[in-house]
Amino acid sequence: MAKSLPRSPLAPAEFPALPAIGGVRFAAAAAGVKYQGRTDVMLAVMDPGTSVAGVFTRSATRSAPVLDCQEKLGGGTDQGAAILVNSGNSNAFTGHYGQSSVAEITAAVAALTDLPQTRIFTASTGVIGEPLPHDRIVAKLDELNAGLSDTEMKAAAEAIMTTDTFAKGASTTVEIEGKPVQIAGIAKGSGMVAPDMATMLVYIFTDAAYEQASLQALLSAQNETSFNCITVDSDTSTSDSLMLCATGASDVDATGNADFAKGLRTVMLDLAHQVVRDGEGATKFVEIQVTGAATDADAKIHGLAIANSPLVKTAIAGEDPNWGRVVMAIGKSGAKADRDLLSISFGDVLVAENGWVAPTYKEEQGAAEMQKAEIAIKVDLGLGDGTSTVWTCDLTHQYITINADYRS
Amino acid sequence: MAKSLPRSPLAPAEFPALPAIGGVRFAAAAAGVKYQGRTDVMLAVMDPGTSVAGVFTRSATRSAPVLDCQEKLGGGTDQGAAILVNSGNSNAFTGHYGQSSVAEITAAVAALTDLPQTRIFTASTGVIGEPLPHDRIVAKLDELNAGLSDTEMKAAAEAIMTTDTFAKGASTTVEIEGKPVQIAGIAKGSGMVAPDMATMLVYIFTDAAYEQASLQALLSAQNETSFNCITVDSDTSTSDSLMLCATGASDVDATGNADFAKGLRTVMLDLAHQVVRDGEGATKFVEIQVTGAATDADAKIHGLAIANSPLVKTAIAGEDPNWGRVVMAIGKSGAKADRDLLSISFGDVLVAENGWVAPTYKEEQGAAEMQKAEIAIKVDLGLGDGTSTVWTCDLTHQYITINADYRS
Repeated sequence: MAKSLPRSPLAPAEFPALPAIGGVRFAAAAAGVKYQGRTDVMLAVMDPGTSVAGVFTRSATRSAPVLDCQEKLGGGTDQGAAILVNSGNSNAFTGHYGQSSVAEITAAVAALTDLPQTRIFTASTGVIGEPLPHDRIVAKLDELNAGLSDTEMKAAAEAIMTTDTFAKGASTTVEIEGKPVQIAGIAKGSGMVAPDMATMLVYIFTDAAYEQASLQALLSAQNETSFNCITVDSDTSTSDSLMLCATGASDVDATGNADFAKGLRTVMLDLAHQVVRDGEGATKFVEIQVTGAATDADAKIHGLAIANSPLVKTAIAGEDPNWGRVVMAIGKSGAKADRDLLSISFGDVLVAENGWVAPTYKEEQGAAEMQKAEIAIKVDLGLGDGTSTVWTCDLTHQYITINADYRS
Repeated sequence: MAKSLPRSPLAPAEFPALPAIGGVRFAAAAAGVKYQGRTDVMLAVMDPGTSVAGVFTRSATRSAPVLDCQEKLGGGTDQGAAILVNSGNSNAFTGHYGQSSVAEITAAVAALTDLPQTRIFTASTGVIGEPLPHDRIVAKLDELNAGLSDTEMKAAAEAIMTTDTFAKGASTTVEIEGKPVQIAGIAKGSGMVAPDMATMLVYIFTDAAYEQASLQALLSAQNETSFNCITVDSDTSTSDSLMLCATGASDVDATGNADFAKGLRTVMLDLAHQVVRDGEGATKFVEIQVTGAATDADAKIHGLAIANSPLVKTAIAGEDPNWGRVVMAIGKSGAKADRDLLSISFGDVLVAENGWVAPTYKEEQGAAEMQKAEIAIKVDLGLGDGTSTVWTCDLTHQYITINADYRS
């Protein structure tokens, strides 16, 4: 692990107060998987009636835990479920040994919690290609079980950190039929972050009841415009996992409820933005709003081409209003664009239009926008109604420092 | 322009001695387009009988000179041709003014050389979005014309540099029907380099005769496995141009000749590798050899995913034999891969196979490979016969320094 990194300048002031979610309890422990002197395993145990949905990386080299989770999705809700996550070792590219580690852990958790093994989900994050010392994790299960509490969600968020400089949590309350429903989640991620079906590790819990297949559809759809619209460095982890568990403890069925969907989106966007704010070496939080594209898909391609361009990201790091590099990124994206129809703004400052710099544009206005910690780049293609918003951070010396040293 | 940069540690010892190419003369001048105290315009004038082929960026926001060149390709060879290139300003995203600048310059060169305007090709490289001061270039045409000489190719190479730390040239001699044929070329490029039909500015000349349409087909085909297989930072310029001019002065018709094609490939690869060796901030030259892919196209996708991965490139900068990141890049590429069939070597050291680290692998062997200035990463997918080789460099602090400061 890298030397202890300073807290990101873009981090929220503090970890939010998360509500207890009826039907789910958390615990964290220090198993010494790799790190010393910190927690590195979290366990979440859900009551019977819990619907579990998940979205995972599509990487062709995805990890053993991801493959195992994907097999188990879609099961019944009459039994409870459990999630066990460790940091320090990703159990990825570990051959058949990796599958055995997952089997050992899930069998042990199943025995401990009296749940079927098919309802035990795991994730691992950290170094690739080293055998997971699963015995150390199994040895901590009794301690984890004894520590389970509905107030330990923050401890769980801390246990899954790797190069993260702050723990990430978010929550909201939604009123359905006059009754409050809670949604709260945690996430980890700061590098190797780019959208591919899912990104990083994210666990969201609600006490609403939700029909399983509908919950899966909702999560997949919302993922497309939240976690799949963020990128730190265009690299995609072999372990990316996003799970949503609906315990039903509130006795409110939220299936198909629009307010619930909206509340869920709030929590997902909040966590997604926190991951960007903890992007390795990030000093700027950048929102790229693309409008007027031929299609929404085209808009996203343009947005991600801008967000992933090293030249755009270094210009932002240097506070350089270098709109020429934005033009370059649009041009190379492969999605439809017409040089003479597109317009570009930094914040509310119109920079370019009609195939050239805007006649009203003054360089000092662009420079002032770039000095902000939160930057908006707005691109209108002038072609149609397609829109997309993506989020990223700048590319700085600190990213190089972290990744030229850290063995991940 | 960035402060004067130190010569790349990967640069060749010196600019090669280039042969005179019968039928083409060069000149360079200091027009003060942007830079002071150096040459920034080159002119090449070819005799009647010259076939001209070209490959250009597919960027949707490509520059006015690129659009103009594309319109003019494929014309007859009964007249000569001329190429004028300036550095310091790319004349890209400059609206209708940009087209006017090209028209002004090509008209003036046509008048000067007594060639039709349709045979005058131009390129511009440098800052995007600022009006090209074409008057300064036109004012230098008499001086350029007076200076034309078949020995000024090196001066031409120097005049088109931007952030390049060394001028790039390469040549070879091919024997056809017992007669020598010369091929020589120059290139510029060090950042905003990624394959998209063509990359950077490259001008290659030969005294062979070559039928125009066949020359175009040859150039397009060879571009796919040379300039389209290099990447510095995944960003694609709006000005990328590659041109090949066959003057016929040797009275040897090389149309369809295999030795000529081989000689051309030597020159193209040499120039392509020099661009990578001058990659912004580069300290390592990296060759990625992909074999065993389902198709050649898949092999190239994997190769470029590895070559463009910031996490792979920073690991190389840190001399970290972090093969887990290579696994990650293969996994995210989108091309076919099977985790348990692929193998990875650093140089001749087998690192991973059968979905895990190779039992014979010792970390110190991998570390020793990474300490070299020239690194080979070999990936075999174990799926089929598809192969591709791509070249890139590492991602260092110096890349950030250059691009967070340089207004390009």
